[in-house]
Amino acid sequence: MRSENGGRKIAAGWILAPHSSLLILTTTMTKIGIINVSDRASAGIYEDIPGKAVVSLLTEWLTCPWEPVYRVIPDEQDQLEATLIELADKEGCCLVVTTGGTGPAPRDVTPEATEAVCHKMMPGFGELMRQESLKYVPTAILSRQTAGIRNQTLILNLPGKPKAIGQCLSVVFPAIPYCIDLIGGPYLTTDQSKMTVFRPQ
Amino acid sequence: MRSENGGRKIAAGWILAPHSSLLILTTTMTKIGIINVSDRASAGIYEDIPGKAVVSLLTEWLTCPWEPVYRVIPDEQDQLEATLIELADKEGCCLVVTTGGTGPAPRDVTPEATEAVCHKMMPGFGELMRQESLKYVPTAILSRQTAGIRNQTLILNLPGKPKAIGQCLSVVFPAIPYCIDLIGGPYLTTDQSKMTVFRPQ
Amino acid sequence: MRSENGGRKIAAGWILAPHSSLLILTTTMTKIGIINVSDRASAGIYEDIPGKAVVSLLTEWLTCPWEPVYRVIPDEQDQLEATLIELADKEGCCLVVTTGGTGPAPRDVTPEATEAVCHKMMPGFGELMRQESLKYVPTAILSRQTAGIRNQTLILNLPGKPKAIGQCLSVVFPAIPYCIDLIGGPYLTTDQSKMTVFRPQ
Repeated sequence: MRSENGGRKIAAGWILAPHSSLLILTTTMTKIGIINVSDRASAGIYEDIPGKAVVSLLTEWLTCPWEPVYRVIPDEQDQLEATLIELADKEGCCLVVTTGGTGPAPRDVTPEATEAVCHKMMPGFGELMRQESLKYVPTAILSRQTAGIRNQTLILNLPGKPKAIGQCLSVVFPAIPYCIDLIGGPYLTTDQSKMTVFRPQ
Repeated sequence: MRSENGGRKIAAGWILAPHSSLLILTTTMTKIGIINVSDRASAGIYEDIPGKAVVSLLTEWLTCPWEPVYRVIPDEQDQLEATLIELADKEGCCLVVTTGGTGPAPRDVTPEATEAVCHKMMPGFGELMRQESLKYVPTAILSRQTAGIRNQTLILNLPGKPKAIGQCLSVVFPAIPYCIDLIGGPYLTTDQSKMTVFRPQ
Repeated sequence: MRSENGGRKIAAGWILAPHSSLLILTTTMTKIGIINVSDRASAGIYEDIPGKAVVSLLTEWLTCPWEPVYRVIPDEQDQLEATLIELADKEGCCLVVTTGGTGPAPRDVTPEATEAVCHKMMPGFGELMRQESLKYVPTAILSRQTAGIRNQTLILNLPGKPKAIGQCLSVVFPAIPYCIDLIGGPYLTTDQSKMTVFRPQ
């Protein structure tokens, strides 16, 4: 068993207390936030397929224990900012994934909310996701999805269309566990046959 | 005949008035702004080739009725911002295309003016245009061209060199009609044999 | 012998004074700033390999006379901003290259310092460097490196890993001499067999 990052945030389990011979059961569980940002899903008009698609992919890939912190909210920038802050600061999620609200329409405000709460922007995520989506549809350039860091939380925007969610998350996920290492989060592990992640030496 | 977007902005033609049997001749014409941003063209030193190149391409591609709103102005940020606002808010252009002023030189201020008047930035346009231009010249990375949304207007920066204009506009145009749909603009149609546009289901 | 850009900034040498028959020995040497941004290198814990790697590449490529202005400083945003301003405004460097501090970790502040002192951002540099690095490692998207213009100085962020430095600098350098021409800097020349630079007609 392994205590990563000085034991600050680890998967639930027994850890050896420093300077003692006590074994302590830690209750800090790795949490991942999933926010479906959609007027129609939050009003019950649409089924919440995008959020479930993210949970399903993460369940398939991750081999470390984790729990989802799940929200379905309308395309309201204030509410999304508050939810991102809650999931990052109060829930302590190491990763928060949003779906939807990244297009050019007036109600699409997810990138603006993300930028408002992040301390660092990560332009490489949006670039690579758009590049990947361009293999399928020329309208991929309309997606404004981005990613950024708030304290010890990586926030990542995904599109709202379930098929595009898998395409986008698959292409950036190989870099996510190392990113979370670098910001002091828990050590995420995956089934490498399903999702090959990379950590430089 | 078709009334798109609730008839708010449509091509000129006869429409059926709601709740009546009247046919009304609407005079709302689809307008596209073209701004050649160039000290030398606006001073009459250079011929206005870039602006004409854009009109020529749009005339070749578009099958819906439209009219250009045309300007040639110097590389002055205040003047460009005022012109962008005039063409978007007063003229009601659904699309405003600029040419020139996107490089690193002190007088190149087109991206700054664009960002100043837009409510949403669309990073995918600049990324794809630079990627395309890199197939021809390594100096493509010096172009800072971008795109953004001001209310119901898509603003798009193109380079100033006529050859690069065609390369850049061709690669992003397939996504433009759907973008204009999403921001509540008129329904643009093209000769699909010349410019294949894409609208997701 | 050649006086570029009105003789304002040129390589050291004899120039013909305007409106006279005097030959004047100018002492204005082309300067290139290199800043290794690293807590550990500045504390002497790590050897300064990244900064030396940049000097070595520029020495191999450039055929015009130039001198490095060299700094090794910690990952402190205020100190980096002050150093960038010093090298641009006081030392008159036409190019300032930083190494390190571009990742997502809390101490990585190089892109923020760069953006704070630049008047124009050049997104194409970061896009192309990430795209190139993605050929080697999927974690390339974690690099937030960018470039920008401060007056007559191009500021360019490179990663901190020596292997990645060569990959990134090689891919953007073909556009750098022309960029420096456009902002009124000295005329950089290279051994085209080692580094092929491009200047449009």
